[in-house]
Amino acid sequence: METRVDRRNFVKSAAGGLATATALVAAPARDSGGVRLGFIGVGGHGISLVRQALRLDYVAVPAICDITERNLDRALDEVEKSGRTRPEGYSAHEESYLDMVARDDLDGVLIATPWRLHIPMCVAAMRAGKYAATEVGPASSIRECWDLVKAYEETGRPCMLLENHCFDRWNMALLRMVREGVFGELIHCQCGYEHDLRARIVQGKGTGVELPDGGDYRTLQNRKRNADLYPTHGIGPVANWLDIDRGNRFAYLTSTASKSRGLAAWTRDHLGPNSAPAGIDWASGDVVTTVIKCANGETVVASFDTRLPRPYSNMRRLQGTKGIWLQDGDATSLDKSTIHIEGRSPPHKWEPFGPYQEEFEHPLWRRYLQEGVVGGHRGSDFLKVRAFADCVRDGLPTVIDAYDTATWMAISPLSERSIATGSRPVSFPDFTNGNWMYNKPIFGLTDRV
Amino acid sequence: METRVDRRNFVKSAAGGLATATALVAAPARDSGGVRLGFIGVGGHGISLVRQALRLDYVAVPAICDITERNLDRALDEVEKSGRTRPEGYSAHEESYLDMVARDDLDGVLIATPWRLHIPMCVAAMRAGKYAATEVGPASSIRECWDLVKAYEETGRPCMLLENHCFDRWNMALLRMVREGVFGELIHCQCGYEHDLRARIVQGKGTGVELPDGGDYRTLQNRKRNADLYPTHGIGPVANWLDIDRGNRFAYLTSTASKSRGLAAWTRDHLGPNSAPAGIDWASGDVVTTVIKCANGETVVASFDTRLPRPYSNMRRLQGTKGIWLQDGDATSLDKSTIHIEGRSPPHKWEPFGPYQEEFEHPLWRRYLQEGVVGGHRGSDFLKVRAFADCVRDGLPTVIDAYDTATWMAISPLSERSIATGSRPVSFPDFTNGNWMYNKPIFGLTDRV
Repeated sequence: METRVDRRNFVKSAAGGLATATALVAAPARDSGGVRLGFIGVGGHGISLVRQALRLDYVAVPAICDITERNLDRALDEVEKSGRTRPEGYSAHEESYLDMVARDDLDGVLIATPWRLHIPMCVAAMRAGKYAATEVGPASSIRECWDLVKAYEETGRPCMLLENHCFDRWNMALLRMVREGVFGELIHCQCGYEHDLRARIVQGKGTGVELPDGGDYRTLQNRKRNADLYPTHGIGPVANWLDIDRGNRFAYLTSTASKSRGLAAWTRDHLGPNSAPAGIDWASGDVVTTVIKCANGETVVASFDTRLPRPYSNMRRLQGTKGIWLQDGDATSLDKSTIHIEGRSPPHKWEPFGPYQEEFEHPLWRRYLQEGVVGGHRGSDFLKVRAFADCVRDGLPTVIDAYDTATWMAISPLSERSIATGSRPVSFPDFTNGNWMYNKPIFGLTDRV
Repeated sequence: METRVDRRNFVKSAAGGLATATALVAAPARDSGGVRLGFIGVGGHGISLVRQALRLDYVAVPAICDITERNLDRALDEVEKSGRTRPEGYSAHEESYLDMVARDDLDGVLIATPWRLHIPMCVAAMRAGKYAATEVGPASSIRECWDLVKAYEETGRPCMLLENHCFDRWNMALLRMVREGVFGELIHCQCGYEHDLRARIVQGKGTGVELPDGGDYRTLQNRKRNADLYPTHGIGPVANWLDIDRGNRFAYLTSTASKSRGLAAWTRDHLGPNSAPAGIDWASGDVVTTVIKCANGETVVASFDTRLPRPYSNMRRLQGTKGIWLQDGDATSLDKSTIHIEGRSPPHKWEPFGPYQEEFEHPLWRRYLQEGVVGGHRGSDFLKVRAFADCVRDGLPTVIDAYDTATWMAISPLSERSIATGSRPVSFPDFTNGNWMYNKPIFGLTDRV
């Protein structure tokens, strides 16, 4: 209970005077002894969110919205099959979600729609008095990041970015090691989203939503925007290690994009030079490198690399005055992750990370391993949904909050601006209005959320 | 012979009208059937250059200069022990090297002195009619890079940066693979100099030259400059892969430095808080990240990381439209290097680089392996000296030339400028005066140099 009280105190100091509002929004969930969740968008990502939520016996699902009826029906069926009442479905038109979030029998809303709708839908849910949670993606603009922060500050309803990589087993062990001083003072981090998505980008697969001018959200964003379009998988865990917006903050970034060749080459080789996508002039550079300088002096390199053939990687590095951890080449396996801690590792030699993972297992993961790991992305998909549902149930602020969500998603429009001006440095807005100097960490403080 | 003729033609077009001068400077070496080399600076690096040169039976060493007499004596002894005439030694004062380069019995001069002397000494050697070669390090300023280029253009005497990493076995195999199109069109590279040098930086060890205010060149540069101070180990091979100054060029860079903590922490822990170096306010950030954009649209990330505990790495990556090669964590072993080539590697899987190294062995290394690999840094120290000596002997332009040397060394003052202005983009000077659009590659064209 002690850490929960700490987190509640944090919200008081962070958002000033919001403690009452937070307590109010939490009341219904606590009274019913359960949590009533609605979902907007139940395609590939969204149905996974539903499935994770259905693992929690205290969760009810009164309503689901998706304009694609086959997605909606599948989700309604799955809820019903779980033994719960069949939810009410919303699919009449693109603004049906507004009807859903207005219901008075929902405590929280989870959003997994095309990228450009994430923040507007969060804002609508919060302004309708609900906890909001959104799948990851880029912000469209800095303005909508402010919209999100303002909605949080004016309503007291929390918003959580569902960043599964924050819950990755090694990233949480590293968070514990950072807090226990194993790396000394942190100096430099590296991260990325390096994932060969050429087929999905060109052909628009993966959402079920086909836009009028060909392909889904990912296709259009790659056609029109030259930016790091998917920063949060990389940045989320790094922000936790570095106490971003909680004693530290991202001060500025530069971003540099390579030329764009990968998508055109893939189209030519796989669909032919006369296929419709062969004529597309892609705005997005194949590899976008962003370098961030923090207020406390640390640097972060983030790589966005989804338009070339390559095995998946998150290109992580964590480096301090006492040691370095490195995970490149294969981000899906602990085996490929190496560490060197001065005075503990043999001089100038890497050690495998495995024994450190055992020794510094985060309490949340120690408990999770005992309970049994479930769900996709090595168990992190379930953890992120459970963390959100637990916070809603207990009337607590979410462990990834509106400031995290705004700051991490803002990297996309900020990198876009830097690239458009020849890699000029671009300052981060301070979404906390100076409270970053006073805020305390909120992520990974307990063995449950 | 064919490639040699090509390289001679290159020099004609690159430096316009210099062919005659080049032929003239080469004449003495060719006439004597041997090469007469002088050395300035024979400390740790310099004595290695002498030793490599002594392996070549066509090399004579008439003169050596070092203001540290014990270094000089060791070098004179080693030359004599090799069966050659004992060289004349120069050590009277800091400008004794000017007397040495003025001798008329020298064809080439190799320089391994503190960093700030590299370019001035090259210029002096070239203006005295000699081929010049210098150990690696940073330029002090852009102006001295221009001095070097002007000296080359006005004298026709070649200058070669002795960048051993250009001759590394895997880097040359990769160069062949690039030229054979294995990676498709190049998009992105990564490189670095990541080497725990804390003891050497703080204590000034490694050169034998103690500066009046404590420590050697490395100490003072780390005290006063915040920049990528050692860019060429990383950048040299990358520049060859990307045809820099030969059809392509570095357009601009941004550079971002972390805070400086590593050297102070090391001093405190190893020398104590009351030791003299404990009071030093180090200018150099612990990790400096530089991002370069090329005229042809490729991007390069370079890391400079010598002030924290870590195993050695050059953090290399080579990425094109058809595949990616990665070498991180351990830069001294082929075993840790992995590759993925689309259509050849299993989908989304890394392969070990070993079999590719065999298949795409560079002709120079194929021959070298048959002859027997000798000397330090896995054989590359010998290759760089032999390449220089061979070029002198044959009256050919060097395979790393004055433009390469100026461009690669210029990264230090350019990164310094970017860091000093909050990571603003800084343009590269075009040392070729537009000839980069016409120049042809010169490195790795034969099986000998």
